[in-house]
Amino acid sequence: MAERKSALVISAHAADFVWRCGGAIALHQARGYDVTVVCLSYGERGESARLWKDGKTLGEVKSIRRKEAEAAAKALNVHDIQFFDLGDYPLVVDQDSKMRLVDVLRSVQPRFMLCHSKYDPYNTDHMYATEVALEVRMIAQAWGHNPGEQVLGAPQLYLFEPHQTEQMGWKPDTLLDITEVWDQKRAAIECMEGQQHLWDYYTNVAENRGNQFRRNSGGQAGGRPARFAEAFQSVFPRTVDEL
Amino acid sequence: MAERKSALVISAHAADFVWRCGGAIALHQARGYDVTVVCLSYGERGESARLWKDGKTLGEVKSIRRKEAEAAAKALNVHDIQFFDLGDYPLVVDQDSKMRLVDVLRSVQPRFMLCHSKYDPYNTDHMYATEVALEVRMIAQAWGHNPGEQVLGAPQLYLFEPHQTEQMGWKPDTLLDITEVWDQKRAAIECMEGQQHLWDYYTNVAENRGNQFRRNSGGQAGGRPARFAEAFQSVFPRTVDEL
Amino acid sequence: MAERKSALVISAHAADFVWRCGGAIALHQARGYDVTVVCLSYGERGESARLWKDGKTLGEVKSIRRKEAEAAAKALNVHDIQFFDLGDYPLVVDQDSKMRLVDVLRSVQPRFMLCHSKYDPYNTDHMYATEVALEVRMIAQAWGHNPGEQVLGAPQLYLFEPHQTEQMGWKPDTLLDITEVWDQKRAAIECMEGQQHLWDYYTNVAENRGNQFRRNSGGQAGGRPARFAEAFQSVFPRTVDEL
Amino acid sequence: MAERKSALVISAHAADFVWRCGGAIALHQARGYDVTVVCLSYGERGESARLWKDGKTLGEVKSIRRKEAEAAAKALNVHDIQFFDLGDYPLVVDQDSKMRLVDVLRSVQPRFMLCHSKYDPYNTDHMYATEVALEVRMIAQAWGHNPGEQVLGAPQLYLFEPHQTEQMGWKPDTLLDITEVWDQKRAAIECMEGQQHLWDYYTNVAENRGNQFRRNSGGQAGGRPARFAEAFQSVFPRTVDEL
Amino acid sequence: MAERKSALVISAHAADFVWRCGGAIALHQARGYDVTVVCLSYGERGESARLWKDGKTLGEVKSIRRKEAEAAAKALNVHDIQFFDLGDYPLVVDQDSKMRLVDVLRSVQPRFMLCHSKYDPYNTDHMYATEVALEVRMIAQAWGHNPGEQVLGAPQLYLFEPHQTEQMGWKPDTLLDITEVWDQKRAAIECMEGQQHLWDYYTNVAENRGNQFRRNSGGQAGGRPARFAEAFQSVFPRTVDEL
Amino acid sequence: MAERKSALVISAHAADFVWRCGGAIALHQARGYDVTVVCLSYGERGESARLWKDGKTLGEVKSIRRKEAEAAAKALNVHDIQFFDLGDYPLVVDQDSKMRLVDVLRSVQPRFMLCHSKYDPYNTDHMYATEVALEVRMIAQAWGHNPGEQVLGAPQLYLFEPHQTEQMGWKPDTLLDITEVWDQKRAAIECMEGQQHLWDYYTNVAENRGNQFRRNSGGQAGGRPARFAEAFQSVFPRTVDEL
Repeated sequence: MAERKSALVISAHAADFVWRCGGAIALHQARGYDVTVVCLSYGERGESARLWKDGKTLGEVKSIRRKEAEAAAKALNVHDIQFFDLGDYPLVVDQDSKMRLVDVLRSVQPRFMLCHSKYDPYNTDHMYATEVALEVRMIAQAWGHNPGEQVLGAPQLYLFEPHQTEQMGWKPDTLLDITEVWDQKRAAIECMEGQQHLWDYYTNVAENRGNQFRRNSGGQAGGRPARFAEAFQSVFPRTVDEL
Repeated sequence: MAERKSALVISAHAADFVWRCGGAIALHQARGYDVTVVCLSYGERGESARLWKDGKTLGEVKSIRRKEAEAAAKALNVHDIQFFDLGDYPLVVDQDSKMRLVDVLRSVQPRFMLCHSKYDPYNTDHMYATEVALEVRMIAQAWGHNPGEQVLGAPQLYLFEPHQTEQMGWKPDTLLDITEVWDQKRAAIECMEGQQHLWDYYTNVAENRGNQFRRNSGGQAGGRPARFAEAFQSVFPRTVDEL
Repeated sequence: MAERKSALVISAHAADFVWRCGGAIALHQARGYDVTVVCLSYGERGESARLWKDGKTLGEVKSIRRKEAEAAAKALNVHDIQFFDLGDYPLVVDQDSKMRLVDVLRSVQPRFMLCHSKYDPYNTDHMYATEVALEVRMIAQAWGHNPGEQVLGAPQLYLFEPHQTEQMGWKPDTLLDITEVWDQKRAAIECMEGQQHLWDYYTNVAENRGNQFRRNSGGQAGGRPARFAEAFQSVFPRTVDEL
Repeated sequence: MAERKSALVISAHAADFVWRCGGAIALHQARGYDVTVVCLSYGERGESARLWKDGKTLGEVKSIRRKEAEAAAKALNVHDIQFFDLGDYPLVVDQDSKMRLVDVLRSVQPRFMLCHSKYDPYNTDHMYATEVALEVRMIAQAWGHNPGEQVLGAPQLYLFEPHQTEQMGWKPDTLLDITEVWDQKRAAIECMEGQQHLWDYYTNVAENRGNQFRRNSGGQAGGRPARFAEAFQSVFPRTVDEL
Repeated sequence: MAERKSALVISAHAADFVWRCGGAIALHQARGYDVTVVCLSYGERGESARLWKDGKTLGEVKSIRRKEAEAAAKALNVHDIQFFDLGDYPLVVDQDSKMRLVDVLRSVQPRFMLCHSKYDPYNTDHMYATEVALEVRMIAQAWGHNPGEQVLGAPQLYLFEPHQTEQMGWKPDTLLDITEVWDQKRAAIECMEGQQHLWDYYTNVAENRGNQFRRNSGGQAGGRPARFAEAFQSVFPRTVDEL
Repeated sequence: MAERKSALVISAHAADFVWRCGGAIALHQARGYDVTVVCLSYGERGESARLWKDGKTLGEVKSIRRKEAEAAAKALNVHDIQFFDLGDYPLVVDQDSKMRLVDVLRSVQPRFMLCHSKYDPYNTDHMYATEVALEVRMIAQAWGHNPGEQVLGAPQLYLFEPHQTEQMGWKPDTLLDITEVWDQKRAAIECMEGQQHLWDYYTNVAENRGNQFRRNSGGQAGGRPARFAEAFQSVFPRTVDEL
C-alpha cells in the first residue's frame, strides 16, 4: 500500500476541488499517485443558486451536487472521493468529524495536502476548512492519538487558488504545468452545470497561469512552453537536496 | 559550456558568502555545478574591526580580507571568485559596475542566484546588494541590452540567511541538507580569522536548521536524518511538474 | 420598502456605534437612509466600570446602558436599534443568534455594513463581532438558506475606527465628512455618561480626521473645509463607473 | 481650461498604459476627461524582444515602439501622449526629468494619477516609476517650487494592474467597469504587434475582472452585468460625502 | 501580597515554559518576582513520542510529563505551577476553564504575562493558547466580572520564542540577558527526558540570542558581554518615562 | 563629555522635530540628556505655504523658518541645533553630507536616535531621511571609517509619529509620558507661525496618546494619570535585564 504515492484534497464544498486543483489531481494520478478528495459539504446552500431558483428541495440539491462532483472526480481520475455532508454556509466541523478526518489522513498518508487560502472574507467556510486542515494534520502526527496507528509524517499543505486571489492575501510560490491534463480539467469543469459562469473564468485563470509558468521558467529565452498551469501557495518550507 | 550547470552568488562583503551559503556552494559544486561568487566589496571598513584595532592600513585590510575570502572559496571548491572592490559602509554600485555585473550574469547563465535579504536595518549594504541583484537580473534578460549576446533566462533568486532573521522580515521557504559538506563549510568559516565571534554562531544556525529540516521532512515519523542545513527564501515562484 | 436606502451597524457593545460611526449614522439618515443598529451586548460587564464602582447590579447596569444607547440612537436619528443581549467579556454568538442576525441582514438589505476592526488584542469581543459579521453576510447571500427569501446582495463592510488604531492593524481608506452632523454626534456621545473619559478623545479624533480629510481632498490648494470626519477601512473592493 | 476634468498616466515603458489602464483611459475620455499619458521610455531594450530578434537597430526599435504607442493612444482617444525617452532596463529619471514631470503635473492638474505597483521584483523600472510618481506629486504640491505657478491639489494615485499581481503585493480596491470601451482597449492592445503573447493574457484579465465586478456589485442577486473590468489599488484614502 | 512582584506564564503543553522562557522565569524569581506557571495540558498525546513508543499508557504518560515539568519548575525556582489537564492535540479550553484562568490572573495580578506566538501552522494548540490568553486578560480586566474582586491592570503580554520563528511571523523586540541563570535553565531542560533532541537546539538558541543581545547593546563598541539570552515579542506598547 | 547622556534627532524639515518629538526632547533635557537636533532642510519649499503666499523670497523663507526652529528649540531647551540646509521637495543628501552626519553621530554618541517613519507616500523626504539615518548609523559603527575615532555603539532608532499614522504603516510600541513638559512643547508648537493649522492637531494627538498611555499602564485599575504623551516605533529590539 505504501508503494503508491498519495495525496489528499480537502474541499469545503463539493466543487472547489475542480476549479482550484483539478489539474493537479489529474496530473498526479497520471504520475502514479492515488489522490483522495474529501468534500466537507456539498455546497448545497451557498453554491447552488441555480438549483434553488429552479425550485429544487434540499435533498435534491445535495443529490445533484454529489452527482456533479462524482462525475468531475471521474473525469479527473480521482482515486477516492468522500462526502462528509457537514453542511455549508456555515460549514461546521464538530470534534467527531475532525477525528474522522484524522483517520482519513492516517489512512491515506499523503505526500502533500491541498486546501483553501488562509483568509477569505467572502467565504468563511473556506478559511475555516484550512484551519481544520492544520488542526487535523497536527493531531494525525501525534504519537499519543490512537497509539499504535501509523502516525502522519510532515506533508506539505498547498493552498490552492481562491477566487479574487489578492483579496485573500494569497501569494502563489509554485506553478504546476497542467497542459497535458487540461482536457480532463475542462471536462471536469463542465460537469459543474450549476456554475457555468465560472467555466470560462477558470479557463482564463489556467491560460494566464500558463503564461506565468513560461515567464518564470525562462520566458522567451527558452522556457518550457506550458499552455495551462495551476498555482499554489506552500504553508511549510521545502526540504531539498538541490536548490 | 552550457553543459555544466552553474550558479551565481552576489555577496555584499567578502565574507558573507561563507556564513550564509557556504554549504550550498560546496554542495552544488559536488553536484556538478560551477558556482561563481562575486564579492562587491571586501567589507574592509565595516566588517574588519579586529584588523583596524590591530592598526592595519586600508590596503592591508583589503589584502587580508581578500586572502581570507580566497581561502574560504578554496575550501568550498568555488569555481570562480571575483572581487569588484566597490567599497563598503556604504557600498556604492555605479552604472558601470552594474553593467559589469550584467556581463557576469550573462556569462555564467546561472540556474539560480543567491543574495541578501530584502530588508536589513542594521546593514544597508545588504539590502542594497539585493536591489542591485534584481536590477541586473532584469537588464541581463533584456534582448536589447548588447543585442546578440545570449540573454539570461529566469533564474530563481534565493535570499540567503541574514543575521537576526526576524528583524529582516526574512522567511525561509527552502531548507537544504548540507550534512555531507559540513566539514567544508566549517573549514571555510575558520578562514575568517577576524570574525571568530561568528564561528559558533553559524555552526549553531546550521545545527538548528538541520533540526528544522528533519521536522519538515517527516520528523520522528521517518524523516531524513539531516544534521546540518541552510535556509533560503525564494523571490520568484517555482515552476514544477509535480508538487 | 426597497425604495429607501438602508445601512446596518453591528456593534459588539452598546456604545461602540456612537464613538466609531455616530457621524456616519446621522449623516446617512439625513441623506435618506434607514440605518439599523444591532447591539450584540450591552457592554455591561466590560465597559461599565463606573456603574459597577457605584454598586449597581447586573440588571441595573444593563438597563442603564440600554437607556444610554437608546438616547444616543435618538440623537443620531437611528431608524431602528435592536439589542441582542448576548453577554460581553466574552461575547458569545451561538448558532441561533447568528441566524437571527442573518434575518436582520435580509430584512434590512443594507447598501453597506459597519463593524469593528479585524484585529484587537485588547478586546477580543470586537474582532469576534467582525468574524461573525463576515459569516452572517455569507449566509445571508446563500440562495439555499431559507429558500424563497430575498437573498442579500454584496454590501460593502466598512470597519469603523477602533481605539489605538495602529495596534489593530487598521488602515482607513475612506474619510467621511461629518461636519454637518457633528452636533448630533457630540450629543450622542454625551449620552454615554459612564465613559466621560472618552468624550474628548473621540472629539479629538473627529477633529483630526477632519484635518486629514482636508489634506486628502486638496489641502491648501483648494480642498473642502471639512471640520469633522470619520474614517473607515473597506473590506471589499469598490465597483465603480468612474475613478 | 480648468473646466474639463483631467487625468495623468505615468507609464514606465511605451506599452504599459495599454495593458494596464487602456480601459480607464478610453472610459474617462468618453466621460469628458482629458487624459495625458507620459511614457518615460519606449521599453526599447527590455520589452521589444521580437524586434531585436528581427535584427532591428536601437533607433528602429524606438521608432517602431513609438508608432505602436501612438496608434494605441489614438485607439483609446488619448488627449495627449508624451515620450520622455529616458531609456529602459534600467530606467533612470534624473533631476531635470523629474522637474519636467512636475511641470506636466502642474499643467495637467489631474483629478487622479495612474502608475505601477509599489513592488516588482521582475521589473525594477516599474517600481522605480512609482517612486518617482510619488516624489513629483509631492514637489508639484509645494508652494515654494516655482512660486507663482498653480500648485497641485491632492489627486489620488491609482496603481494599475501589474503582471503576476500576487508577486507584487498588489491588492486592488477598485474595480472599474470598462465594458462599453472594451472594443477600444482590444484595438489598442492589437497595436502592440511585438507582444502578441500578451493580447489574450490581458483579455482574460479583463474578463475575469468583469466577473469580479459582478460578484462585488451584487452577483446573482442583481449586480450589474459588467463583462470587462480593470482593477486598481489606491494609495491614498478617499474623501467622501456618502459611504 | 501586593508587595512582591509577580508574573504569569501560560504554557499550552507541560514543557513549553522550559524551552521558551525558562531563563526569564529563573531570572525574575531571582529579581524578587513570584512566577506562576499554568500548563493547560501535559502535552501527553502530541509531545511525548518517546513515551508512547515505549508502550506507556495515557495515565503513565501524563504522570511522567507532570513529574518532568515539576522537576523543571523546581530547577527554575518557579513560585507556583498549576496543571489544568485540558487535553492536547487538540487543546480545548471550555468556558469554565477560561473562568478558572481568569481567577488565576486576578489572583496573581501579574506585571507581565508570557504565552505563545500568534501564529503556528505546525501546532494549532500554541496559537489557540494565545487567543485564550488575550480573551481571559480582557475578562479579568472587566469591572463587571465577579464584581468586588480586584480587577486586572494592563500587564504586557510577551510572546515567547516558538520553534522555527520565521514560519510563525514572530518578531522579537526584547532580548533578555539570562547569563546568570543559564545553569538553571539548562538543568530544567535536562528534566525533559523525552525530548532530548531539543536540548542542544535550545542551547544553540540561547547562545545565538546572546550574540544578538551583544550586537544590540553596543557590540564590539562596548556592549554588555551577555552569553545567553531569550527573546520576546511584545503585544502591547510600553509606557515609559524615558526612552 | 561621555558623562552626560545624549540623544540625536534627525529632522527632514525644520519643524518636524517640534510636532513629532518636542516632548521627548524637553523631557530628556530635563532628565539630564544633551539632545542635538539636525534639520536636514528648512522645509522652505514644501512646508511654508503661508510665507510663499505672502510673497516672501527663498532667502526670506529660509531665514524665517530658521528663526522659528531656533525659537522652538529654545523653548524645548535643545542642547544643540544644526541646519544642514540641503534643500527640500526633494531633499537630497549627497555623499559629503552623509559623512557630515556620520561626524555628528560620532561626536554626539547618542543613547538613542529619533527620525521619521519608514514609509510616507505623501512626503518622500520623510522616508528618505530615515533611509539616510540607517545608512549613517551603519557607517558610524564601522571601525574602518576614519580609523582612530570613537565608533558608534548601537543606539535605538525611534521612529516618531508621522501625520496620518495608519497610511505610513507606522505602529508605535512605546508611549512616553510628556505631561510635565507639555507647556514647553505647546510653546514650541506656537513658534511655528506658518503652520497654525497644525497646532490643535498635535495637541489633540498628545491628549489622545495620553489616554492611550493610561490605558496601557493600567487604566482605571490604577494606571498612571498621564495627560499628554508621545508615541514611538522602535526599529531595533531592546536589550534588557528585566521584562
